[in-house]
Amino acid sequence: MAAADLIELWRGGLMESVHRGHAVVWDRGGMVAAWGDADAVIFPRSSCKMLQALPLIESGAADAAGLGTEQLALACASHQGARIHVDRVAAWLDGLGLAEPDLRCGAHMPNDPPENRRLTCSDEAPCQLHNNCSGKHAGFLTWTRHHRAGPDYHEPDHPLQQAVRRVFEEVTDETSPGYGIDGCSAPNFATSVSGLARAMSAFAVAASGEGSGARTAAMRRLTRAMTAHPDLVAGEGRACTELMRAMGGRVAVKTGAEAVFVAIAPDRGLGIALKVADGATRASEAAITALLVRLGLLDAGHPVVGKYLTDPLRNWRGIAVAERRLATGFDA
Amino acid sequence: MAAADLIELWRGGLMESVHRGHAVVWDRGGMVAAWGDADAVIFPRSSCKMLQALPLIESGAADAAGLGTEQLALACASHQGARIHVDRVAAWLDGLGLAEPDLRCGAHMPNDPPENRRLTCSDEAPCQLHNNCSGKHAGFLTWTRHHRAGPDYHEPDHPLQQAVRRVFEEVTDETSPGYGIDGCSAPNFATSVSGLARAMSAFAVAASGEGSGARTAAMRRLTRAMTAHPDLVAGEGRACTELMRAMGGRVAVKTGAEAVFVAIAPDRGLGIALKVADGATRASEAAITALLVRLGLLDAGHPVVGKYLTDPLRNWRGIAVAERRLATGFDA
Repeated sequence: MAAADLIELWRGGLMESVHRGHAVVWDRGGMVAAWGDADAVIFPRSSCKMLQALPLIESGAADAAGLGTEQLALACASHQGARIHVDRVAAWLDGLGLAEPDLRCGAHMPNDPPENRRLTCSDEAPCQLHNNCSGKHAGFLTWTRHHRAGPDYHEPDHPLQQAVRRVFEEVTDETSPGYGIDGCSAPNFATSVSGLARAMSAFAVAASGEGSGARTAAMRRLTRAMTAHPDLVAGEGRACTELMRAMGGRVAVKTGAEAVFVAIAPDRGLGIALKVADGATRASEAAITALLVRLGLLDAGHPVVGKYLTDPLRNWRGIAVAERRLATGFDA
Repeated sequence: MAAADLIELWRGGLMESVHRGHAVVWDRGGMVAAWGDADAVIFPRSSCKMLQALPLIESGAADAAGLGTEQLALACASHQGARIHVDRVAAWLDGLGLAEPDLRCGAHMPNDPPENRRLTCSDEAPCQLHNNCSGKHAGFLTWTRHHRAGPDYHEPDHPLQQAVRRVFEEVTDETSPGYGIDGCSAPNFATSVSGLARAMSAFAVAASGEGSGARTAAMRRLTRAMTAHPDLVAGEGRACTELMRAMGGRVAVKTGAEAVFVAIAPDRGLGIALKVADGATRASEAAITALLVRLGLLDAGHPVVGKYLTDPLRNWRGIAVAERRLATGFDA
C-alpha cells in the first residue's frame, strides 16, 4: 500500500509542496486508525530511545547506579546540547567513574543557541557530550559497566545491542528485518509503523498504572521520566519539549531523524507512530500535532498548535505568504 | 499524472526515505524527456531570477546604469551573504544614489559561515544586503529608478512586476495561473515544469549565439554573466556555484526554494527544470546532478557528483551509514 498525502504547503492559493507518509494509532484493543501503509518498514531512529533504554532498567543497572528520573529522561532524549543537558550527562558519567572519551556517539555542534554561540565565538570544538544522543549513550555505558561488558557497546554484536534487539522485537511484537547504523553509531532496528505504534501503546498502558512485572515497571518509569522532564528530552523551542509541556505531562512524545514521530498517551492506553516518507521534520511535527489535536490530547487553541501546524508562514518582512494544510484523507 | 520517485535514501540495506517529483528536459525540438507530471504547476521561486531580470536589460535600465556582468550575475543570484556579495550590492545601490533602506527584501542571517560568525559573535544584526535576493532587488531598483516608478517595486501591481509577468508568460509560453509572495516579498509567478524547462531552453539557445533581437541579447547576457561568476550566483560550498565550476562555465544552473532546480546548456540549446514535490533541497541537488551527468554535461567522476549524489553519507564518527540512490525509472 502506498504512502498517503499528509501535509501540504500552500502559497498564493496553489499547493506548492506536499508530504506523504504513514501513520498508525494503536490502543489496548489494537489498531484504531491508519493512514498510508501500516506495514511500511521504517527505521524509528531516535523515536525508539525508550525501547533502547528498557535493558538499562530491566537488568537492574539503572538502580545499581542510582539513576533518577533526570537520567532516565536523558536516556530517552534527543537533546540540543544545552548546559542543562551537557552538565547532567557529564555528572552521570563521572558518577560511573567514566568520562567523555568513553562515549561512542561522536561529537557535533549543539543546536541550543546559547551553547552553539558560545562554542562558535570561542572557537571551542563541541565534544561528545554535546551529541544529541549522549544521554542514551550514558545509559548504554551504565548497562555496560554493570555487566562488565566490552567498551564498544555500540557494536551490533555487543551483548547490550543484542539485549536491545531482543527487547525491541518483543515490544514491537515483530522480528526486525534488519538494522541500520544511526548518526550516533548505534544500531537502529527496523520495524513496521504499526509495530512501533503497538510498542508505544504498550508503554502507554504500562504508564497508566495497569499491569505488573519488570517490563511494565520499566516502561512506566521511562514514560513518566519523559513527561516529568520535557526540557531534558529535547530543549527550549523544540517540538518534543513544547508539545509535552502543552499537554501538561499527560502525554510523552518523541521525534526521530528522517521524520519519525511517536506519542504515548497513558490515560487512553494509546500509542501513535508516524513516518513522513521524504524525511521532512517540518511535516512530521505538523502531522503529530494534527493527530494529538484530533485525538483530544492537545488543545487546538494552544499556541504550539499554531507554531507547528495552523499559523501562517511569514517571510523576512513578516508577511504571511504560505500555510500548512492537512491533505484530504488526513483531515478527518 | 502523479509525481515520480526520483531520489531514495538507503540505510542498512533498507530504503529509509524517498523523494518524488517532476523533471523536464527541453531543447530546440521541444520536450526531450520527462519524469512525473510535465504539466505540474509549480512556483519556480528563485530558479526564475534570470526571467525576472529580463526587463532590467530589455528596458535599457541596465545599460543606463552601466551594469556589468557582476551585477547581472547578482541579479540572478541567491547568494549567501558573504562580503563578496554584500559589498557589491552595497556599491551597486550607492551608484544608483540609493541605499539599503530602499530595498524591500527584508533581512535575514547570511548562510556564509564567516559572515554569519562575524554577525553572531559581534551581536550585529543582519541587514537587507545580506538577504540572498538582495542582488535581484538591486536589479529591481535599477529598473524602478530608470522608469521613475514608485518605491514599492515589489507590489504585484507595480509596473515592474507587471513587466516581469509579461516577460515570464512570453518566455514560458504559458499564461501564469497565479502568483505567490516569495520570501523576499516579490511576487513569484507560477508555471508548469515544462514551461520552466522551455524557458531555460530559450536562454540556452540565446546563449549559444543563435538568434537576434533585444530578448535574445538579454538572455545571452544573463546566462553568460551567471557562468562567468559562479561565486556570485550562490557562494563557496553551495551547489549552484560548485556545479557551474565543475562544468567549466559551459552550463548555468540555479536552485529555487522548495526544491526547484534549473539548468541552461547553451552548447545543446538545452534547458532542464525539476521540482521535488516535498520541497527537499537535498533531493533537488541530487536530481539535477544526476540529470547533468546523464546528459553528458557533467563528468560523473567529478568530486561534486560525489558530494551531491554518489558519496556515502557519514555519521558523526565518519562511518558510512547511508547512501543516495536514483529511484527505478529515474535511473536510466
